Amino acid sequence: MGGSILVVGSVAFDSVKTPFGEVDDILGGSATYFSVASSYFAPVRVVAVVGDDFEDRHIAVFRKHQIDIEGLKRAEGRTFRWKGEYGYELNECRTLDTQLNVFAAFNPVIPEAYRTSEYVFLGNIDPDLQLTVLEQIQRPRIVACDTMNFWIQGKPDAVKRTLAHVDILIINDGETRMLANEPNLVRAASKIMDMGPETLIVKRGEYGVLMFNGKSIFGAPAFPLEEVFDPTGAGDSFAGGFMGALAHASDVNERVFRRSIIYGSVMASFNVEQFSLNRLTNLTRSEIDQRFSQFKALTHFEEF
Amino acid sequence: MGGSILVVGSVAFDSVKTPFGEVDDILGGSATYFSVASSYFAPVRVVAVVGDDFEDRHIAVFRKHQIDIEGLKRAEGRTFRWKGEYGYELNECRTLDTQLNVFAAFNPVIPEAYRTSEYVFLGNIDPDLQLTVLEQIQRPRIVACDTMNFWIQGKPDAVKRTLAHVDILIINDGETRMLANEPNLVRAASKIMDMGPETLIVKRGEYGVLMFNGKSIFGAPAFPLEEVFDPTGAGDSFAGGFMGALAHASDVNERVFRRSIIYGSVMASFNVEQFSLNRLTNLTRSEIDQRFSQFKALTHFEEF
Repeated sequence: MGGSILVVGSVAFDSVKTPFGEVDDILGGSATYFSVASSYFAPVRVVAVVGDDFEDRHIAVFRKHQIDIEGLKRAEGRTFRWKGEYGYELNECRTLDTQLNVFAAFNPVIPEAYRTSEYVFLGNIDPDLQLTVLEQIQRPRIVACDTMNFWIQGKPDAVKRTLAHVDILIINDGETRMLANEPNLVRAASKIMDMGPETLIVKRGEYGVLMFNGKSIFGAPAFPLEEVFDPTGAGDSFAGGFMGALAHASDVNERVFRRSIIYGSVMASFNVEQFSLNRLTNLTRSEIDQRFSQFKALTHFEEF
Repeated sequence: MGGSILVVGSVAFDSVKTPFGEVDDILGGSATYFSVASSYFAPVRVVAVVGDDFEDRHIAVFRKHQIDIEGLKRAEGRTFRWKGEYGYELNECRTLDTQLNVFAAFNPVIPEAYRTSEYVFLGNIDPDLQLTVLEQIQRPRIVACDTMNFWIQGKPDAVKRTLAHVDILIINDGETRMLANEPNLVRAASKIMDMGPETLIVKRGEYGVLMFNGKSIFGAPAFPLEEVFDPTGAGDSFAGGFMGALAHASDVNERVFRRSIIYGSVMASFNVEQFSLNRLTNLTRSEIDQRFSQFKALTHFEEF
């Protein structure tokens, strides 16, 4: 196993409706999807908060994957709840209800043992909190970060303060255009890389991923699936697979980055095949490597 | 040069407005973009109709690229005119005006010399007319075809009759879902391949292309450009580059198909850099090959 990964984000109960079924109060949240996906590649530590309704069977999911949950704090009250609905256009989600509950007062305290983590993923939380996390980490090798429209519009200065300390920003294309205030993605990426991150990864849902890394651009399609059941957590599973593969590698370079993008895409593709973490918690390493090879077959072409 | 290509489609005058500029009555049309793009790879013949307002300077564009225009019929009246507008989201176009003019009575007659063409591209015209074209061709090696929502909804039976005689269908993702009446793209592709075409190529604009070829799937991103000036004709330039590369190759197989998809993407990427055919008519073969190599750099990753 490679370097250790720290993820700070949400652990939640999701209620999700898709054209293929409906589930209530199932385990979700950015830190959950991220940590399970990355656990196949490297040791993972979680900082998040849950309520007193969080049961042993939920804890068991983390334990099954040897995820360190010393930083999973239990607070009085209910766990963060989210309810959403997808139509046949699975790229688009309608949020029906958000109850922050204990997540509203989330103030991430990094346990002593976590402070030497080499790889840090700042899930989509208040950019000011993301910065306080970084202040508690000693000398991370790679800091990756997610954010969203809500923070880009509501706290643009805080987002930019945090980005100055981030190596890799992982957001979607709408967020990229909004953050850079620039409709062209290539120019937007260039503006964002001037804000701090050396690398920008743009998630495009069913269309795949673009990675801007200095002057280099890498593009990969999403894996075409016959069954897309529930897109919830795809972005966090991607980030988890990506950071996991990065931490597992012995080096940080363009070649490792590209391979890690594909491992991220692999984990996202498994995640959407079933509701919640049902597929992600039941994978073998050989299934993961097999799909990696299928990605090679999907994208390979020859010049002569 | 490889096998000869026949294209049947529209030649038009376009008026286009984008956030970057505006032009009136410039040369356009599916057969125009297709034939110029494919002319870099193989001999091309055009069957289309223009009005008495079609000038020598328009003819000169075809001549410059050694495109055979024996089948470019001149009719009394005005040439087909289209007017459209793009916003910053260049994937979406608003049609402001369509004047079919001489195109309304277009009845493609294939000149004797064209009837042995090995590669045939049926541009987006009435599916009944597409079928009459095929009836005039002796033994084509590959028949590729475009169509659109208007025909899929308005003449579904005629579309299916034509598809039974088509090897490769080249349409966008919305058309794919509509034609198959199936929201999942992989399942939709499978249904469409049951209708006749062995190969389905799904154009996804700025997100690239998916090719379904029997059990194999190939995905390629679009080339990320800093300057996207005018997306008009991108799909036809793609089809032209694809069919051109196919005709240029000595063989028809998955490897050749994939390489041709990249050449199609190369031609589409050049086309959108300037208004009308301005970029497409001023390319060198070495510029084309250089961008092909850039596509390799864009998509390449290694397993170990």
